[in-house]
Amino acid sequence: MSDATITNPAIRNGVDTATLFATLDAIKGDPELAKFQFRASNRWISGTHSESTMQGFYGAKQEMGHAAAFYTTADHPAILVGEDKGPTPVEFLLHALAACLTAGIANVAAARGINLTEVSSVVEGDIDLLGVLGLSDEVRNGYQQIKVTFNVKGDDADKLRQVVEQSRKRSAVYDVLTHGVPVSIDVVTG
Amino acid sequence: MSDATITNPAIRNGVDTATLFATLDAIKGDPELAKFQFRASNRWISGTHSESTMQGFYGAKQEMGHAAAFYTTADHPAILVGEDKGPTPVEFLLHALAACLTAGIANVAAARGINLTEVSSVVEGDIDLLGVLGLSDEVRNGYQQIKVTFNVKGDDADKLRQVVEQSRKRSAVYDVLTHGVPVSIDVVTG
Repeated sequence: MSDATITNPAIRNGVDTATLFATLDAIKGDPELAKFQFRASNRWISGTHSESTMQGFYGAKQEMGHAAAFYTTADHPAILVGEDKGPTPVEFLLHALAACLTAGIANVAAARGINLTEVSSVVEGDIDLLGVLGLSDEVRNGYQQIKVTFNVKGDDADKLRQVVEQSRKRSAVYDVLTHGVPVSIDVVTG
Repeated sequence: MSDATITNPAIRNGVDTATLFATLDAIKGDPELAKFQFRASNRWISGTHSESTMQGFYGAKQEMGHAAAFYTTADHPAILVGEDKGPTPVEFLLHALAACLTAGIANVAAARGINLTEVSSVVEGDIDLLGVLGLSDEVRNGYQQIKVTFNVKGDDADKLRQVVEQSRKRSAVYDVLTHGVPVSIDVVTG
């Protein structure tokens, strides 16, 4: 990797900018390539504990997949009558947000020729459980607010701030969390 | 676990309903107990690859934590110029939704005295990457729609459908994904 970085100036922040720009050009030429469907399959284990598998997805006009299946568990902690076998479902929203913004920061910085040395973040979500517990109809079920604090180091501070702002403007997870998305639920029984 | 189930009729679907009802009573008596803050700390590794840590949270009027820290990675697949070191950030939204609804199904069914033998689901999210790639201002960045298909087995089919519906009505993740939440982003540089 470090050899590649030295010999290939197209790789910046670990991002292969030549491939990134080639991908953008390919999609400009054929916008159908940009239509993706991501999927997760979940299986209940016991109580509030379940496990998801993420492998196959559709994109670039074909069925594709991760090189290997990824498995992720979720549970409630003991204080919420779970067995603490994994993070809570709502914590995964915070992870998804941080990871999406951070990937965008690395890509945007690389595309702009800006070097990063550190990107770290803390994401905090405030929630009043009177909603989900059915103890209040005034309190919403979900987070009331989410706060992200980034620590970004690298080239010029003003440029780094602009990179974070551009990442926010084009983040899929930020868009879903701030604007919502239609969700349909079908149930098959027996 | 199976011994406990036999000797303790309060445990159904792996849910300790006695503790669940005691928790609800405690919160009714002191609603401040229901105020929680969940957190994730994320660290950029390289390119689109990052890792989150989830351990500490606030709740029940005190700082608390999972028994151990949970670590979760995210990345983009090769087709999206990543190194495929983890699921994509947007796939974690699908996992969070499935896990939240499934935990709710187990809890609601247990509280209603309904036995479950299987809960599995597939979550599909359609996204047109022309948005995130900055190639269209007409296309949103996030998912255009999410579809969940549950397979639920156990007691009476009508009751199982009502359980799923009640879980949806009180799901924190479903609420956030369908209605959105205010997100603030602060940046510290240098």
